[in-house]
Amino acid sequence: MIKKLSAEFFGTFWLVFGGCGSAVLAAGFPDLGIGFVGVSIAFGLTVMTMAYAVGHISGGHFNPAVSLGLALGGRFGWGELLPYWAAQVVGGFAAAVVLFLIASGAPDWTAGGFASNGYGTLSPGGYGMVAALLAEIVLTAAFLIIILGSTSARAPAGFAPIAIGLGLTLIHLVSIPVTNTSVNPARSTAVAVFAETGALGQLWLFWVAPLIGAAIGALIWKALLSDDA
Amino acid sequence: MIKKLSAEFFGTFWLVFGGCGSAVLAAGFPDLGIGFVGVSIAFGLTVMTMAYAVGHISGGHFNPAVSLGLALGGRFGWGELLPYWAAQVVGGFAAAVVLFLIASGAPDWTAGGFASNGYGTLSPGGYGMVAALLAEIVLTAAFLIIILGSTSARAPAGFAPIAIGLGLTLIHLVSIPVTNTSVNPARSTAVAVFAETGALGQLWLFWVAPLIGAAIGALIWKALLSDDA
Amino acid sequence: MIKKLSAEFFGTFWLVFGGCGSAVLAAGFPDLGIGFVGVSIAFGLTVMTMAYAVGHISGGHFNPAVSLGLALGGRFGWGELLPYWAAQVVGGFAAAVVLFLIASGAPDWTAGGFASNGYGTLSPGGYGMVAALLAEIVLTAAFLIIILGSTSARAPAGFAPIAIGLGLTLIHLVSIPVTNTSVNPARSTAVAVFAETGALGQLWLFWVAPLIGAAIGALIWKALLSDDA
Amino acid sequence: MIKKLSAEFFGTFWLVFGGCGSAVLAAGFPDLGIGFVGVSIAFGLTVMTMAYAVGHISGGHFNPAVSLGLALGGRFGWGELLPYWAAQVVGGFAAAVVLFLIASGAPDWTAGGFASNGYGTLSPGGYGMVAALLAEIVLTAAFLIIILGSTSARAPAGFAPIAIGLGLTLIHLVSIPVTNTSVNPARSTAVAVFAETGALGQLWLFWVAPLIGAAIGALIWKALLSDDA
Repeated sequence: MIKKLSAEFFGTFWLVFGGCGSAVLAAGFPDLGIGFVGVSIAFGLTVMTMAYAVGHISGGHFNPAVSLGLALGGRFGWGELLPYWAAQVVGGFAAAVVLFLIASGAPDWTAGGFASNGYGTLSPGGYGMVAALLAEIVLTAAFLIIILGSTSARAPAGFAPIAIGLGLTLIHLVSIPVTNTSVNPARSTAVAVFAETGALGQLWLFWVAPLIGAAIGALIWKALLSDDA
Repeated sequence: MIKKLSAEFFGTFWLVFGGCGSAVLAAGFPDLGIGFVGVSIAFGLTVMTMAYAVGHISGGHFNPAVSLGLALGGRFGWGELLPYWAAQVVGGFAAAVVLFLIASGAPDWTAGGFASNGYGTLSPGGYGMVAALLAEIVLTAAFLIIILGSTSARAPAGFAPIAIGLGLTLIHLVSIPVTNTSVNPARSTAVAVFAETGALGQLWLFWVAPLIGAAIGALIWKALLSDDA
Repeated sequence: MIKKLSAEFFGTFWLVFGGCGSAVLAAGFPDLGIGFVGVSIAFGLTVMTMAYAVGHISGGHFNPAVSLGLALGGRFGWGELLPYWAAQVVGGFAAAVVLFLIASGAPDWTAGGFASNGYGTLSPGGYGMVAALLAEIVLTAAFLIIILGSTSARAPAGFAPIAIGLGLTLIHLVSIPVTNTSVNPARSTAVAVFAETGALGQLWLFWVAPLIGAAIGALIWKALLSDDA
Repeated sequence: MIKKLSAEFFGTFWLVFGGCGSAVLAAGFPDLGIGFVGVSIAFGLTVMTMAYAVGHISGGHFNPAVSLGLALGGRFGWGELLPYWAAQVVGGFAAAVVLFLIASGAPDWTAGGFASNGYGTLSPGGYGMVAALLAEIVLTAAFLIIILGSTSARAPAGFAPIAIGLGLTLIHLVSIPVTNTSVNPARSTAVAVFAETGALGQLWLFWVAPLIGAAIGALIWKALLSDDA
């Protein structure tokens, strides 16, 4: 169990450090910055790389919503859910601390939004709460269908980290303008603490919507798609 | 059969929601937007991710032209063609509805072209009807050759979703300026309904050209390339 | 043999249509254009997709320099070299014809360089002939090492099209500013015919340098690296 | 042994030529340049392509910090460490020579930073020494976890070059603004020699930090994650 929780800790650390780090440090760099495309690629690669590295240890969730969906889908034991959630939240928070230390090494830096998620005035494109809820629910549901499907026994073996990681890239390509993209409560929590905006007050949505979306995705999989024996 | 049609429904939903969603929501975001590169990656990843997730259920067509080409290539039963087409068109339309709801959550938003396909004045680069026909036919034909070849018995097992998904990325990298890239009548139909331009009046081309192209690709494969036993 | 030559014809068609097509149609599109990154990805994906689709038929060379290097490396019969070269050159030329027809469907379009290769005044960044020779030789040599290595018996099976295709992407990321990137005489020949610049007069370099580079790469592989049994 | 050292020589040559070459030649090209995203992709692809090509010969380290971490992780013999380091440094330096020759073929070119690493005034974003140390240590540690994990016996076979190569892409997406990204002392050494800035005087950090980071990563793997039998 300690190895599983270590894997979830470091995997979620990497997701927040790499994904939010690319956003905080590199997205808006003058002229040569990586923009939303680069941030989307970065988030996806955090999951792909750590899924190959430690997925065989813990399953490679790195996300409380994913753990919930896998439990609902019958792929993960309910008894491990809360320890996984704890490891994910703590790992993500540790990454935010290290990222904050590095980012503050630049001249005249301020945390600002610190890659936090938000809606309304805290949405990059000014999208309202209903749009944010809808986007996070639909995208997390699709994410769970991708995860449950690509890891099912009949799917090609070994490719799931590619499908899942690049699925997260795709999710970011669509929705950074809407909510700055969460689909992951641990990622949202980690950086909200450091944001100088009101991100912490909107954090509830980035627990509620991904968890609802993950549940919907798992139920769609079981009811309509699953070809598990 | 219900699982197959569900897989085609959700796969095409994801193609339209992810691909057209990235175009509508993120392509032109000020300074940090994803541009044609990001939209091209998004469309390709919709197919790659869902092909890994549900390809083992339905074959992972998500596109009426692909279903036609696979039937002509002897890989898909003619009796399932129309049900697949229906699931694809309905799935794509459902995605456009959800996308419309999210997109309209931004201040002062109007649908405009809503990522629809077009030629002449509705082509992003002003390309005429002949160029549009030619581009859609050639690209869909090549798409079918990639699909039929990468899923043939002698091709490396498990890699087809990568080849096919990134093949769709490549197709978009070439042709977004020409027609906004269709090669998929279900994708074109889904968003044309919501476009405030005359896209619906040009929709015929994005059924005719992809279907002709798919047929040509399937016939080239069978006549000149197939190494099926 | 007809299937092999068909595979080389269509593979090289796709390389020129997709790679040069992305450059001609989409690279410089205002605001949203794909730039050198998009063109680099496109060239790489042409090879990756067709290598998965028809690589099991012809070996998937799509490039006279690759065919030469594979013959020198003992992986390809000398007797097939000239027929492969012919299929590659004709396939590339056919793609340039179709691309020209599509591109000329835009208002006020002129062919200009038509994605041709060049040095001196025809180099995108004004690089001289020595730099062009050096870049094309070194990059083609490395390309052959990647090809011979990733397709060797001890390399992981099935992944070669990824290594080779994305190797071509990498080559373009480095050298589009120098020569517009060839490493492929068939690609250079196909579009030089249509260029309104003096590209045809510089075409010799894009046969000589890739062929020399391929030979060097094959010899390095055989002398210093090969672990073939 | 000669084949192993040749593989490390050419692999590190390719890493420096392709990665630093993309930065020097193409990153800042007017309007169409590849920016930090393109450079990040290029660095990652150098490792992915050569890991598939020669990884089965030498293990595919191409980086003194990786060799150290693998030795600490029990995957690589201590007796080969210094010969590997020598081959890596010499290979990287050879690449920098060739890159310098090509780059100087452009009109009015000066070497400037020549893609060297730095902190303080030599950091692209002006990040101080502590931030540089922290970033290089954390990123190299994570890199080693990805390498040790994705090549462990229980990870899917054949995918490690994808995880490792794209892991390096991710590392660059995060940290080019901080240090121009090293995590590889051979890469840093190769170009520091040619930089017209004070990069050589800061080179110590890009040996110390990656080596410390690699050691930390290897120890974390062994203590908390390893599922090796």
